Amino acid sequence: MTTRIVELRQGILKKNDELARGLRQRYGSAGVLVLNLVSSPGTGKTAFLERTLRELRAGGARVAALVGDLETDNDARRLAASGAPVRQINTHGICHLDAEMIDKHLAGWDGVELGGLDYLFIENVGNLVCPSSYDLGEGIRVALLSVTEGEDKPLKYPTLFNSADAAVITKMDIAEACEFDCELARKNINEIRPGIRIFETSAKTGAGMDEWLGYLAEGRTGRS
Amino acid sequence: MTTRIVELRQGILKKNDELARGLRQRYGSAGVLVLNLVSSPGTGKTAFLERTLRELRAGGARVAALVGDLETDNDARRLAASGAPVRQINTHGICHLDAEMIDKHLAGWDGVELGGLDYLFIENVGNLVCPSSYDLGEGIRVALLSVTEGEDKPLKYPTLFNSADAAVITKMDIAEACEFDCELARKNINEIRPGIRIFETSAKTGAGMDEWLGYLAEGRTGRS
Repeated sequence: MTTRIVELRQGILKKNDELARGLRQRYGSAGVLVLNLVSSPGTGKTAFLERTLRELRAGGARVAALVGDLETDNDARRLAASGAPVRQINTHGICHLDAEMIDKHLAGWDGVELGGLDYLFIENVGNLVCPSSYDLGEGIRVALLSVTEGEDKPLKYPTLFNSADAAVITKMDIAEACEFDCELARKNINEIRPGIRIFETSAKTGAGMDEWLGYLAEGRTGRS
Repeated sequence: MTTRIVELRQGILKKNDELARGLRQRYGSAGVLVLNLVSSPGTGKTAFLERTLRELRAGGARVAALVGDLETDNDARRLAASGAPVRQINTHGICHLDAEMIDKHLAGWDGVELGGLDYLFIENVGNLVCPSSYDLGEGIRVALLSVTEGEDKPLKYPTLFNSADAAVITKMDIAEACEFDCELARKNINEIRPGIRIFETSAKTGAGMDEWLGYLAEGRTGRS
């Protein structure tokens, strides 16, 4: 039984990798930088992304977002407040997004063409485990961690942090109330993924957003 | 491909259900109340459980805990501070506990016999999705939600809340800093699982612990 599951899983991942490769080529040709945001439920991905979309739009960038959830379109509605085009993907019980879901939802997205975008954000299903295994063809994978979650999350969920290109610490405005040890968190992240860029942010106060937006701009320059 | 996965998944779940049924009978014969604690990573399951174990022991109850994590034995070491016997289960990439893992770790647990326990707590892997599908034979399934996670988690992860016997809201001490709307959270939980018992707790201040311990005592009385 175990052997069959492993084989089947490898087959699924292989198929996903092939689809992701195709997506990556399409993103490259279109000149759009794609980011895949992964975290636990409740880390504040949506608040962080909403502020990111809003600030990028204010700076004249063309942005859009796909957002994954098991059920509800709450997050899509929240993100739409930024004024950016947003499309909800409901996975109905699947605990991650895969390349096929992205491919399907890019097709027939009213008024949105990859070639007309500077940035496409994908907010993954809230889960620290399974999304790590599914390449969505993204240029940058972002692991988010909130100050309420404990400094040892990177050690407990190494695959996500090890496969990420950037780490974002969220909710810094309540760091003190949570007795969050930022240096320890940074040390743990660095242990799993040495040298990774780490951003300390608050979607509420705007702390750290300038540095984050600078990183996004660099990401585009590096690609064009 | 999809059909084969669904069939295989149903096969796995059926096997798990059979094992869980066996476990449930063993718990019943031994007279131990077993609780399965499920939440997102970072909800504060470990802090809540550590306080629960400590207070139960202070009241003379015989308690033990199994704790699931992908990697590390950090949580087992934290829980052991309560003085209760604790055993770590490392799942190495699997995002939930299953009945077979419980069965294996109950066997050969130095100094711990089911018949010598009043309560056995199982702290599941931090994940709001997959643990919902795996019965561990528990008497009470507890869904935990922290004030930092957003009031709409029950709507976004209905399977967990729908399959739970009790809901515990954690970190009430920082509810205000997080602008947590407790009434809205209760309303959302009730929408998914009408009439479920809801506890508002803080492992830090001890708020809500008396009511929670009363509920545990009722759970045992109902079973003996």
